[in-house]
Amino acid sequence: MAGNSYGTLYKITTFGESHGEALGGIIDGCPPGIELNLEAIQHEMSRRKPGQSAIVTQRKEDDEVQFLSGIFEGKTTGTPIGFIIPNTNQKSDDYSHIKDSYRPSHADYVYEQKYGIRDYRGGGRSSARETASRVVAGAVAKQILKDIKINAFVSSVGDIFIDKPYQDLDFSKTESNPVRCPDEATAQKMEDYIRKIRKQGDTVGGTITCVLQNVPIGFGEPVFDKLHAELGKAMLSINAVKGFEYGSGFCGARMKGSEHNDLYNPDGTTKSNLSGGIQGGISNGMDIYFRVAFKPVATIMQKQETIDNQGNSVEMHGKGRHDPCVVPRAVPIVEAMASIVLADFYLINKTYK
Amino acid sequence: MAGNSYGTLYKITTFGESHGEALGGIIDGCPPGIELNLEAIQHEMSRRKPGQSAIVTQRKEDDEVQFLSGIFEGKTTGTPIGFIIPNTNQKSDDYSHIKDSYRPSHADYVYEQKYGIRDYRGGGRSSARETASRVVAGAVAKQILKDIKINAFVSSVGDIFIDKPYQDLDFSKTESNPVRCPDEATAQKMEDYIRKIRKQGDTVGGTITCVLQNVPIGFGEPVFDKLHAELGKAMLSINAVKGFEYGSGFCGARMKGSEHNDLYNPDGTTKSNLSGGIQGGISNGMDIYFRVAFKPVATIMQKQETIDNQGNSVEMHGKGRHDPCVVPRAVPIVEAMASIVLADFYLINKTYK
Amino acid sequence: MAGNSYGTLYKITTFGESHGEALGGIIDGCPPGIELNLEAIQHEMSRRKPGQSAIVTQRKEDDEVQFLSGIFEGKTTGTPIGFIIPNTNQKSDDYSHIKDSYRPSHADYVYEQKYGIRDYRGGGRSSARETASRVVAGAVAKQILKDIKINAFVSSVGDIFIDKPYQDLDFSKTESNPVRCPDEATAQKMEDYIRKIRKQGDTVGGTITCVLQNVPIGFGEPVFDKLHAELGKAMLSINAVKGFEYGSGFCGARMKGSEHNDLYNPDGTTKSNLSGGIQGGISNGMDIYFRVAFKPVATIMQKQETIDNQGNSVEMHGKGRHDPCVVPRAVPIVEAMASIVLADFYLINKTYK
Amino acid sequence: MAGNSYGTLYKITTFGESHGEALGGIIDGCPPGIELNLEAIQHEMSRRKPGQSAIVTQRKEDDEVQFLSGIFEGKTTGTPIGFIIPNTNQKSDDYSHIKDSYRPSHADYVYEQKYGIRDYRGGGRSSARETASRVVAGAVAKQILKDIKINAFVSSVGDIFIDKPYQDLDFSKTESNPVRCPDEATAQKMEDYIRKIRKQGDTVGGTITCVLQNVPIGFGEPVFDKLHAELGKAMLSINAVKGFEYGSGFCGARMKGSEHNDLYNPDGTTKSNLSGGIQGGISNGMDIYFRVAFKPVATIMQKQETIDNQGNSVEMHGKGRHDPCVVPRAVPIVEAMASIVLADFYLINKTYK
Repeated sequence: MAGNSYGTLYKITTFGESHGEALGGIIDGCPPGIELNLEAIQHEMSRRKPGQSAIVTQRKEDDEVQFLSGIFEGKTTGTPIGFIIPNTNQKSDDYSHIKDSYRPSHADYVYEQKYGIRDYRGGGRSSARETASRVVAGAVAKQILKDIKINAFVSSVGDIFIDKPYQDLDFSKTESNPVRCPDEATAQKMEDYIRKIRKQGDTVGGTITCVLQNVPIGFGEPVFDKLHAELGKAMLSINAVKGFEYGSGFCGARMKGSEHNDLYNPDGTTKSNLSGGIQGGISNGMDIYFRVAFKPVATIMQKQETIDNQGNSVEMHGKGRHDPCVVPRAVPIVEAMASIVLADFYLINKTYK
Repeated sequence: MAGNSYGTLYKITTFGESHGEALGGIIDGCPPGIELNLEAIQHEMSRRKPGQSAIVTQRKEDDEVQFLSGIFEGKTTGTPIGFIIPNTNQKSDDYSHIKDSYRPSHADYVYEQKYGIRDYRGGGRSSARETASRVVAGAVAKQILKDIKINAFVSSVGDIFIDKPYQDLDFSKTESNPVRCPDEATAQKMEDYIRKIRKQGDTVGGTITCVLQNVPIGFGEPVFDKLHAELGKAMLSINAVKGFEYGSGFCGARMKGSEHNDLYNPDGTTKSNLSGGIQGGISNGMDIYFRVAFKPVATIMQKQETIDNQGNSVEMHGKGRHDPCVVPRAVPIVEAMASIVLADFYLINKTYK
Repeated sequence: MAGNSYGTLYKITTFGESHGEALGGIIDGCPPGIELNLEAIQHEMSRRKPGQSAIVTQRKEDDEVQFLSGIFEGKTTGTPIGFIIPNTNQKSDDYSHIKDSYRPSHADYVYEQKYGIRDYRGGGRSSARETASRVVAGAVAKQILKDIKINAFVSSVGDIFIDKPYQDLDFSKTESNPVRCPDEATAQKMEDYIRKIRKQGDTVGGTITCVLQNVPIGFGEPVFDKLHAELGKAMLSINAVKGFEYGSGFCGARMKGSEHNDLYNPDGTTKSNLSGGIQGGISNGMDIYFRVAFKPVATIMQKQETIDNQGNSVEMHGKGRHDPCVVPRAVPIVEAMASIVLADFYLINKTYK
Repeated sequence: MAGNSYGTLYKITTFGESHGEALGGIIDGCPPGIELNLEAIQHEMSRRKPGQSAIVTQRKEDDEVQFLSGIFEGKTTGTPIGFIIPNTNQKSDDYSHIKDSYRPSHADYVYEQKYGIRDYRGGGRSSARETASRVVAGAVAKQILKDIKINAFVSSVGDIFIDKPYQDLDFSKTESNPVRCPDEATAQKMEDYIRKIRKQGDTVGGTITCVLQNVPIGFGEPVFDKLHAELGKAMLSINAVKGFEYGSGFCGARMKGSEHNDLYNPDGTTKSNLSGGIQGGISNGMDIYFRVAFKPVATIMQKQETIDNQGNSVEMHGKGRHDPCVVPRAVPIVEAMASIVLADFYLINKTYK
């Protein structure tokens, strides 16, 4: 398996299976001299961890990150930051029922076909547990990007959408409810719906919107490494993501140029922002906003037909403790990946000064 | 500027501005011993070139690719394939009016901010003319991927959508109309609409759907380099793209797990395919399909207010020969980028054998 | 700091300072299904570790590697192999004397100039302790390269050289003496000399020769990634290395073409092998051999003048437990780096099949 | 074939065979706003080109570089610089005698084994003609590195060595003789010797020393990408190179620590410079110097036994116009590769500011 690294100058490489001894990673390229706020990092970990509320998985994991290098007397030294997150609450016997069978819409089958072997416990490397390492790297990146504001939130669950533009939202409310939706009335509806879905033993998808503010002009490297192309790849690399759009997105494909063009103010800002803060792959100083679609979690607490590794039809029933809806816990992951992308372009951009 | 390369083992690097002497690129990693069909490559170039029909730009460019290396006695040698596409029909004076001013929703402003200098003629490096080099690399990639079928087509223009699933379409019809929509009745509506828009001096967006068939199981490298994450980045790197979704996409975010899961047949195929042929970032042998959103072309034949490089308000009127709708000519570009991604994973996958 | 990764498909990334909590790394790209012999890996670690004999540093470190991922039921799964090597015997107070001063011919000064901060304990990241992680990655690589024989040995210490061609040596003798010189008479002279040097509080340099046998034809990627260019970079990246030559090396620069050319036998082997098993950057199936020059260890148990971080002249006297000669312990490091390079080309070469 | 790119931020990718239509390359990452001196670039090309003097090959090639992109109104724009060097004087029939046979100590045999096909005309991709593209990229890099002095020269031919330290040489004399040896008496001996060797139909090896002055403190990225490791790889990637040493080099391996350590002056400079301007992989502000060993050219004007592609013994006699000694023409290539390495680290280093 290749592909366990992300970034050019700010580069994260991760390792770890959901039921191995530990997850972890290496951050290479973090600038020296940064006073790392370790509590802020652990706070991001807590936002992602299971068992936070009644509407997420009830697994208990401390998800405590241990830094092993790259920090000296509280400051980054410029050397690689190695870290591990021990797996402390894994119950591997929960997964004996999938040892020889393939869960529908999981990666079990393709891993076995591709690698000829798989660590079946909890999905192994394909588990979303891997994203814990991304959250660490993103939380460090956030501290590099001091003046940039990075706010993700749940914008829809199933058919329940926030019906306001992001400008009308108060991002400080995002953490005030277990859904991480800053619009409180909508948040309540979403929460009720997720509870209902969970009782049915079912799961539901949703979308996350992310807004990046105060990004300096000039982030992004045309041609292939456009800012939105990297943001898109970063988001699509998160488990369960099915789509990405930025600025006008898919709606923009229905518009006319005369409606879509963002006219300039004398100071270089634009009157509208259908471009989503990026033109020609380069940030233009306006807000960057994008939306990410997550499919419903594949593990449902219902009986499903599937096959075993001999091609026999077998019945399977979800076990263990799973999220009925992934988006509340994915909010910090979206922010983390956005932060990693921005930190990388921040460093690349320094080469032009 | 970094970011002019794409791919790990099958790698394309491009150069060239719209009004320089030539565009071109280098394909590194093309396997040796392939009898290259040069006509097939030129055919792809012709699908992309301006002046093909009444609904695309009337610029005349031959877009003839000249191969300079890597091919000996008709076969690839394994060495890098260098190629150029001379710029033969550039009229630089068409662009004197934008020398000091910034076209709305173009990259003029951000290029000047980022680099401190820009080749203003025709957008320079930010011009979609750069994609000609991608089409060359994609056409070579297609010849590596002999058994894989790669079919893109226009699925919407403005509010006009094909209202059928792709399975009901005959891809052999895609080239039978200037819109490149395989559904002929819809194609006619789209063409009429584009003509109308053009008369208004306006432009319109659209979407392209792409279907990849016969992709072997196992393409894609989790964690960060998932097959759909690379396809997403590749598509988002194309000029004017605002969104990407695969499989169930944004609709999937509204569904329940019990509806969305793809149940297995005994042979490992799935009964439904909301996964879009990719699970856990790895192809599962089912059809891969995705949809790409293109915004309307920013250059409109109408008067717009904008600013010059002193921050003064100025009026600007589109000149030159531009596409009223970009999607017909973007179809071969989408196919090219998909081919490049697949060729790269095809080579990476060989390392597991 | 960038640059903590090596390899394209078989890729090792390392982290860790000499006096931090742990060293470690991630091996990405290890093929799945390999039954890892963990004892063989630990054996390589023991060859590198301090305290093995009277002529190396008397520090006691267990250097026990702990694998955290990528191995399931004894086999590699294809996912990244994360590992740590806890630092168990660090005495940080040994280094208080260098907190504000720069040891001559060490990296102290340049680290502080480049990064503005350094972990002064034991050299931090610049310590050769980092190579422990390379030995892990090399030991795993060796198990991928089953049929390839990788033998390094000490070929000189100071002015004491083995005076035989490598073909006359019995590599099984390399481990029979603390110097790791397979010629026993020479080994004894070297050992005596190192003891003498150590008594003087001094150190001495040496060379290591490495022979790679049974390397298949075709490893190496011209133009820039020639096999010997990668071997050279890999060796030069080891602490204290000052030179690299392969085949005829610097002697070859004194020869005539009529003397130097390797004439072919009918089976494609060559009568002589001044090419050193590599032609045009590609292995030709003959033995690959190269020689690596190591400078004397900079930390000497003598008084030296140096400066502090205010530019004042200060006296410094080496403390702690250091190697009087680095080459005996560097033998497994040279083998490790050679193995990593070969494993990478082995995987790249599969893409041509 | 992979491996046709060099560099991370200042990146050169080359293409082209010796007898194809053209060579060329793409420079990605050149900073914007540099007023390129095109004559200086062409001057470097002329230093490398054949036919300059009686002691190099008498082939006539203009080696005129044509820039196709990335330069606008005399300045770099930050976009990739594409260039070609047409092959104008190729006589492919000169090579019909090697179509089916393998020249000793050339890459013919390994290319055919690795790729199954080879462009046999003049060595194809394995020809040193490829280095013309490197000279272009190096000449551009030199203009980025304005204050850094890069001087390579021939330090030995066969057994004739300059017997002075580089500090006693006047680099302005290097171009005053066809050997490119700045010590005129030695240069004359070398020239006489090369003439003699040529008359014998033979060839001879040599070494090039390169001195980099005014390199700022801090270039180089430990751990794997140490400055000297990259310089080493860059040099070893040049055709015919067999060895690389920097600073004390192989001599350093014979020394004691008490002799070898470079003691500091109060200003951070060092009293001696056996480190060769690099400590821990990072430049320390002192002169960087290294030596590169070139084997004798393999094509000799004598009869040699070899084999054909059926394994039959055949006789071969060198034809065409070849260099009796490669080092005079390799001087600008060594400088070019050093410049490329430094430009890359110059840009990487900016990310720390």
